[in-house]
Amino acid sequence: MSENNFISKLESRWQKSQQNTAVCIGLDSEFAKIPLGLKNSAATDGSISSIITRFNQEIIDATHDLVCAFKPNIAFYEAEGTQGMLALKNTSEYIRSNHPEIPIILDAKRADIGSTNSGYAKAAFDELKVDAITVHPYLGREALEPFLARGDKGILVLARTSNPGGGEFQDLLVGDKKEPLYQLVARQVSEKWNDNGNCGLVAGATYPEELKRLREIVGDLPFLIPGIGAQGGDLKATVRSGKDSRGQGMIINSSRSVIFASADVKDFAQKAREETLKLRDEIRRFLVEV
Amino acid sequence: MSENNFISKLESRWQKSQQNTAVCIGLDSEFAKIPLGLKNSAATDGSISSIITRFNQEIIDATHDLVCAFKPNIAFYEAEGTQGMLALKNTSEYIRSNHPEIPIILDAKRADIGSTNSGYAKAAFDELKVDAITVHPYLGREALEPFLARGDKGILVLARTSNPGGGEFQDLLVGDKKEPLYQLVARQVSEKWNDNGNCGLVAGATYPEELKRLREIVGDLPFLIPGIGAQGGDLKATVRSGKDSRGQGMIINSSRSVIFASADVKDFAQKAREETLKLRDEIRRFLVEV
Repeated sequence: MSENNFISKLESRWQKSQQNTAVCIGLDSEFAKIPLGLKNSAATDGSISSIITRFNQEIIDATHDLVCAFKPNIAFYEAEGTQGMLALKNTSEYIRSNHPEIPIILDAKRADIGSTNSGYAKAAFDELKVDAITVHPYLGREALEPFLARGDKGILVLARTSNPGGGEFQDLLVGDKKEPLYQLVARQVSEKWNDNGNCGLVAGATYPEELKRLREIVGDLPFLIPGIGAQGGDLKATVRSGKDSRGQGMIINSSRSVIFASADVKDFAQKAREETLKLRDEIRRFLVEV
Repeated sequence: MSENNFISKLESRWQKSQQNTAVCIGLDSEFAKIPLGLKNSAATDGSISSIITRFNQEIIDATHDLVCAFKPNIAFYEAEGTQGMLALKNTSEYIRSNHPEIPIILDAKRADIGSTNSGYAKAAFDELKVDAITVHPYLGREALEPFLARGDKGILVLARTSNPGGGEFQDLLVGDKKEPLYQLVARQVSEKWNDNGNCGLVAGATYPEELKRLREIVGDLPFLIPGIGAQGGDLKATVRSGKDSRGQGMIINSSRSVIFASADVKDFAQKAREETLKLRDEIRRFLVEV
């Protein structure tokens, strides 16, 4: 098995002897929510692309030593058209140039038929040059092969999502074991999709019981865990349920609560750091408590 | 219920007294496959964006009177970064300016939690200004509300996909009726998601039996049917199984077999027209045969 850059970067960030952090910052940099003072500042050329890029750079500079990953959700960039996509590309480049030790997860929730997924894989891994991507399971393993074949990248498959209505299909009982669909998805990923050792799961913090069950099913696969912060997930229950046998294995994401902690151009980056530090330390504390 | 522009445009294209066509051309304009002669021609400024846009314009001009919709798959544009996305935007603008009667379906297979889907809906409907979008069902109705709320647009939900491995999860038996997941998805969409009369299904031509069962379940909802052509779906079986009670209701997509019918800059548009005409007439013939 060739070295997986995503997993090895993550492991370094998780190590107690190194960064010892499970915090991921979601760079969901919705243009409308960026501090007005930054939009009017001389630090940008006034273009949407330049403003979003600058916002992200300040957040990244203020928090990079505290995180295990950055996770831009592409929807917020697509919403601004080519200007937004340029900002996303610039942000990825900024992280890779200045903080190459931190993995970038593109939260894109892609999945199409195989020949089309090659286009998405190219967009994520060759154009935007990210380390990992999130994908939908609905079309099955066969369709996702262009992602799964990238042994140097991380492929994070949606299992149990953090939204209130996520159970509509995910909780349906299926298969010989009469288990919820999300558990069968996790089982398939763990047992049949992970030949290249590059798979992980997305499992929401809003459902700690489900998180626990998933951990029992898949062992030490990495979990991307959204739902902390604005979505209301319980951090202590999440850490207890989501940690792997080594007491790590979690990428605990917070987006809005961190990056929009302050709307003031003078202190938004500092406030983002304070929120990140608080979250990192809480997770550390819950990890050592039994 | 406010008028749905997508459905009303489609209905006009389907009418026997009008265009009488169920053909959708998939503008899956992978840059590597565009005729070399066009890449070197003086008709473009040599940029990737300009070459893809020009390629699409020629296909559109040569086929617009024969189709019920154009369907760009965004993966092939994302693969070329901001240049590709500019080409997609220009292509949408070209169709809207020159052939406003033809609906544009963005094949993007999106779905995230609700607040994020607002970004995707903005990208598709306000930035790219398309008439419809394809979405994944996995997160459930609650998450898709920002799409479903757009009563003037079309929301096409993946039910049975055309790929060989699509059954891994889609065929699992679920619910009280012990029916395959894809059928329950269709039932939910038809019975519970369609308050605004803007829903349809994606159902692959590679599975005509499944298509028939879906038609029984959902009545006259529009079906986007990929899988004809390069993917090998049987057209006659597809038309028989997919038509609604009025003998229409299908958006039968062909991509590669049409747009890359010739690699020669001198005749690729003409060949695309010939393939489209052939497909339109075959569908017409199968529709009148019992």
